[in-house]
Amino acid sequence: MIPFFSGEHVREAVWPERALDGVRDPFVPYARGEWTMPPKVYVTAYPAGDFRAMPALGAGHALLKWVTSFPGNPVLGLPTVTGLVILSDASNGTLKAVLDAAAVTALRTGAAAVLAAEALGGHDSGSAAVIGAGVNGEAAARTFVARGREVLLYDVDARRAEEVAGRIGAAVAATREEALAADLVVTVTPGHAVVFPEGSLQPGQHVSLMGADGPGKQEIAANELARVRVFCDDWEQASHNGEIVHAVEAGVLVRGDVTQLGDVIAGNATGRASNDEVTVFDSTGLAIQDLGIALAAMERAAELDLPTIDV
Amino acid sequence: MIPFFSGEHVREAVWPERALDGVRDPFVPYARGEWTMPPKVYVTAYPAGDFRAMPALGAGHALLKWVTSFPGNPVLGLPTVTGLVILSDASNGTLKAVLDAAAVTALRTGAAAVLAAEALGGHDSGSAAVIGAGVNGEAAARTFVARGREVLLYDVDARRAEEVAGRIGAAVAATREEALAADLVVTVTPGHAVVFPEGSLQPGQHVSLMGADGPGKQEIAANELARVRVFCDDWEQASHNGEIVHAVEAGVLVRGDVTQLGDVIAGNATGRASNDEVTVFDSTGLAIQDLGIALAAMERAAELDLPTIDV
Repeated sequence: MIPFFSGEHVREAVWPERALDGVRDPFVPYARGEWTMPPKVYVTAYPAGDFRAMPALGAGHALLKWVTSFPGNPVLGLPTVTGLVILSDASNGTLKAVLDAAAVTALRTGAAAVLAAEALGGHDSGSAAVIGAGVNGEAAARTFVARGREVLLYDVDARRAEEVAGRIGAAVAATREEALAADLVVTVTPGHAVVFPEGSLQPGQHVSLMGADGPGKQEIAANELARVRVFCDDWEQASHNGEIVHAVEAGVLVRGDVTQLGDVIAGNATGRASNDEVTVFDSTGLAIQDLGIALAAMERAAELDLPTIDV
Repeated sequence: MIPFFSGEHVREAVWPERALDGVRDPFVPYARGEWTMPPKVYVTAYPAGDFRAMPALGAGHALLKWVTSFPGNPVLGLPTVTGLVILSDASNGTLKAVLDAAAVTALRTGAAAVLAAEALGGHDSGSAAVIGAGVNGEAAARTFVARGREVLLYDVDARRAEEVAGRIGAAVAATREEALAADLVVTVTPGHAVVFPEGSLQPGQHVSLMGADGPGKQEIAANELARVRVFCDDWEQASHNGEIVHAVEAGVLVRGDVTQLGDVIAGNATGRASNDEVTVFDSTGLAIQDLGIALAAMERAAELDLPTIDV
C-alpha cells in the first residue's frame, strides 16, 4: 500500500514557501556530488508533443518523473502537462509514493522562477511580473505573493489573467508593456513568439524564462542573450533543449558565457555583478528539484487523508 | 481515473502464450522504425542495487518502466525487482494505466527466454530446463509448460525448486548437471557464479542467459562465448550491461560476432545455421517488450475488476 498524492494533495501538502526551500536545498548536495541526476530522456511523439523521463537520486530516495508536454492539448480540453512522479527508497528500491506530475512540476517551476529572481535580481528590485497565466505561471505568481511581493500578471487571454489574479491575490497588468517593465519578470509562455526582442531588456532587470524547454520554443532573441548576463539551471539540458539553444547554435553564446544557478546558490560561482547588469535565467527543469518537492510532500503524508495504491 | 494492474491483475490478464506474442510482435515494427526505444537509464545506488528508467513508444502508446534490481533484498524479505509501469496515450499524453513492474518484467523475461529458445534452438530440440526458480525463472518455466514442453527446474534451494515445479507442472532436475544437459536451457540466476565455464556447452544446445543484466553479473565464461554463436536482444545494452560485456571488454567478441534476436524474428538476419551449432542468447530486457505486455494487459482491462487511481 503506497500513498498517492493527487494534484490537490500535492498543493495541500506543499505551500509555495516550502516549495522554494524544496527547489533551493538540493543545489548544495548536488554540487557536492551527494545527489545525482542522470540526463532526462525525451520520448518524442512530434508534432503532437513529447514525454520526458526524469530521474534523480538524493536524500536516500530515487525519483522518476514521467511527464508530458503537448502544447496543442488545451484547445482539446486536455492539459499540456500530465504524468506521474514515482518516489522510491534508494536503500532497497521499495516504492514510497506516487504523485501527480503536473502539480509537482507547477510547484517546482513556480518556485524555481522565484528562486532565480531572488538570487539574481538587483538589490533594489521591487516590482515583479509574470507573463503567462497558465498552470506554471499561476504557480510562479503565487510564489511571489507568498514572498510578500506585489505581482503583476499578464496573459494574452485577459479573462484568464483576471480569473487567476483574483484567485491568488495578484494584480492584472494594464498592458503587456507594463508587465515587461517590472524589475523581476517571469515568462511562462508556450514559446511560440519571442517576448524579448534585441534591445528590449533594461539595465538592472532580471528575467526568468520558464517557457522554452523543447524544440522550436523561444521566448528571447538570440542577440538579446548575447547582450546580457546568462544563467541556466543545467548547461547540458539548456544548451540542447532550452532557451539558449538558438544562441548556442548561432555561436553567439558559449559555455563560458553561461553560469549555472546551482553554482551561485552553492557559493561556487558569482551571481549578479552590479545593480545595472541585466540577468536572464533559462530554466529547463531539474529532476533534483522535483525530488525536493516530492520529499516536502512526504513530510505531510501522515496528516493528509491520502488514497493508496495496493501494489 | 486510470486503472491499476497489481501483479495479480497482470498475471490474470496476460497468460504465458499471450506474453509470448507480446514479446515477439514488437520486433517487426521496431525493425521498421515504427516503434522506438531510447536507451534505458540506470540510476545507481550501489552496492545495494539500481533503478532503471525504460521508455518505449509504439502502437499509439508511450511507456515508462521504473524498475529496480536489488540482489541482496531477498535475505531482507524484500523482492529483488519492484517498481511501476506507466502507460500513456502517445497522441495526447493522457495516462492510460499503471501496472506492477515486477509482474510485467517476469512475464516478459520468461516469454523472451522461450521466444529465443524456440527461434534459435535446434530442429530436434526436445528437453528444456530452467536454472533458477525465482520469479523470472518461474515465469520462463511456466512459458515452456504453456508451449507443451516438459521442463526440468533446478535451483540451489531444492525446496524452492520443488515448490515452484509443483505449482506450475514442471519436473525437478535430479542434479544441476541434468538440467545443464537439456537441449534448451534458460538460466535466471543472480549472476554471481559462472554457470557455463569454457567448453561446457554441447553441440546443438541453446542457452538463454537471462540473469546477467548489470555490473559484476556473469553466467557464462567469456571464452565460452567466443566458441559459440552469440545472439542478444540489443547490442548497445548487451555490450554495456549484459552477459557479453566481459567478452567484449576482453576483445574476444566484436559487434560482427553478435546477432540481434529481433533481426532474426523480423527476417533481417540468419538464426541458427546448423543443427550442431551452439546458440547463446544474452537478454538485457527491452522496453518494447514491456510495452507488448502492457498492451496485452490492456486488452483485458474491461473484464477485470481493476482498482483505479484518481489522478
